[in-house]
Amino acid sequence: MGGPSLNNESMTRPQAQDRAAYAHFSTTTTRWMDNDMYGHVNNVTYYSYFDTAVNTYLIDAGVLDIHAGQVIGLVIETHCNYFAPLSFPKPVEAGIRVAHIGKSSVRYEIGLFEAGEPLSAASGHFIHVYVDRETRRPVHLPEAFVQALTRLQLPA
Amino acid sequence: MGGPSLNNESMTRPQAQDRAAYAHFSTTTTRWMDNDMYGHVNNVTYYSYFDTAVNTYLIDAGVLDIHAGQVIGLVIETHCNYFAPLSFPKPVEAGIRVAHIGKSSVRYEIGLFEAGEPLSAASGHFIHVYVDRETRRPVHLPEAFVQALTRLQLPA
Amino acid sequence: MGGPSLNNESMTRPQAQDRAAYAHFSTTTTRWMDNDMYGHVNNVTYYSYFDTAVNTYLIDAGVLDIHAGQVIGLVIETHCNYFAPLSFPKPVEAGIRVAHIGKSSVRYEIGLFEAGEPLSAASGHFIHVYVDRETRRPVHLPEAFVQALTRLQLPA
Amino acid sequence: MGGPSLNNESMTRPQAQDRAAYAHFSTTTTRWMDNDMYGHVNNVTYYSYFDTAVNTYLIDAGVLDIHAGQVIGLVIETHCNYFAPLSFPKPVEAGIRVAHIGKSSVRYEIGLFEAGEPLSAASGHFIHVYVDRETRRPVHLPEAFVQALTRLQLPA
Repeated sequence: MGGPSLNNESMTRPQAQDRAAYAHFSTTTTRWMDNDMYGHVNNVTYYSYFDTAVNTYLIDAGVLDIHAGQVIGLVIETHCNYFAPLSFPKPVEAGIRVAHIGKSSVRYEIGLFEAGEPLSAASGHFIHVYVDRETRRPVHLPEAFVQALTRLQLPA
Repeated sequence: MGGPSLNNESMTRPQAQDRAAYAHFSTTTTRWMDNDMYGHVNNVTYYSYFDTAVNTYLIDAGVLDIHAGQVIGLVIETHCNYFAPLSFPKPVEAGIRVAHIGKSSVRYEIGLFEAGEPLSAASGHFIHVYVDRETRRPVHLPEAFVQALTRLQLPA
Repeated sequence: MGGPSLNNESMTRPQAQDRAAYAHFSTTTTRWMDNDMYGHVNNVTYYSYFDTAVNTYLIDAGVLDIHAGQVIGLVIETHCNYFAPLSFPKPVEAGIRVAHIGKSSVRYEIGLFEAGEPLSAASGHFIHVYVDRETRRPVHLPEAFVQALTRLQLPA
Repeated sequence: MGGPSLNNESMTRPQAQDRAAYAHFSTTTTRWMDNDMYGHVNNVTYYSYFDTAVNTYLIDAGVLDIHAGQVIGLVIETHCNYFAPLSFPKPVEAGIRVAHIGKSSVRYEIGLFEAGEPLSAASGHFIHVYVDRETRRPVHLPEAFVQALTRLQLPA
């Protein structure tokens, strides 16, 4: 849920970001039950938009097969800052970028925008470690995977 | 979802915590649909355990009335590190502590333990700003509320 | 989750329906966590598509204000038959129709279609009773509301 | 969400049931996000209690291995009638019984009770077809499975 301004925090406080901060966008519809008792999308649900935006990109790029692929992504860290509320029935536009590509891990950064808004309602990240589906041990990222990720990196 | 070890990260990497790191515990049951395609509780769902543990404590302490109270908590930041998987049907024990009490904001830290395990499967935090239900402007934390929070602070 | 054929049931067994059986369509995106351990959208989640399709229609028609309207819909009965699996990341097309308009209750019938498919993957219904937001007592359906519902009725 | 009385329906209208109508009980905790904008558990979420109660029974009875077992249950029909609201933070007690055991299908009937209440807040059913995990074709119910189910049947 989006929050009000705090007037007692430092200059390092996280800030909403604009659309140019993200490399790829997709739209997710909201659901009636996304809204909680206080009338806006529950903070938990934002992370399902994160997961969905990144996994959809990887599936569409042909580098992730969630049903049968040998390499799957496990989440080891997630984070989100909430700047403004989102609410059903308005759709959410999710921007993604890749901030770091390791040997077997990737840091994805995500901004969620209410449809048409210039600044993110929430911004966050998650870190995936890619593992073998059976052994659950980290694997080196396949080359095609790295190529798909590289397209999500912004120019420095 | 719990993750494997990474061998390329710094010493500041987040670590699982033991039960003594938390001031209050409650148990939440898991659900069939908490498990995702990879067979463990989805990373998103951990945050619903966070929300539930803290709100239940506040309701039981008599300082939060989610239906009619004038002061409600809005989430402005959430974070979680995942150390080991949780899975339906095993229940989850949630430990909570309060790390910071501001004029109108509170930082809650939460550890999720598989029933009987000594180390947290995940640890994280969220920051609540308490606002007026109608105006959604920050309010000073009521005295009874601060007292309930103080009981969740660990000795330095 | 969609199910296989049973060979020991009567001729009255529910059947998948085609698109002509519904009066209005909308599209909902699926989410990573909609898929359960068996790899398809969990049976529970179908009902969130039902709720979302009907409430979105009513909001768009200008007859339901979920935040401040005096009349809200409470669900007293839900039902669904599952014919074929749905799966993230494919979107779902939800067809709706109104089967019965009472003094204060409405029976909505819904079919969920995988994008592009001619037959419903699932078909079901729910019954809403419209009540006063405060007293939670049934109210007569407002005239504009009845008009919006009438547009969802199919010719006999 | 629970509903108000309707005064224009027939004598065949579904009725709340008492605890003697169920063969086995388990308790599930509710979650903050289970409550929707209208302040009570969303109608969709009741079905996650259904799924959880039945699968937990089968796992505890040693006849269902959701991770590796060769036989899994797919849902082909679900139904629920709502008589009274349930709300976070109160736990829910789920009663289950088996109404029909076919060659490969089972009809489970479930009642959800607010903790301590004599009558069900909701009653419903779902039908599972048991299939081979790989082929997804119906299989004959294993003998141990039938025995576990028989213990959920009430005397006629």
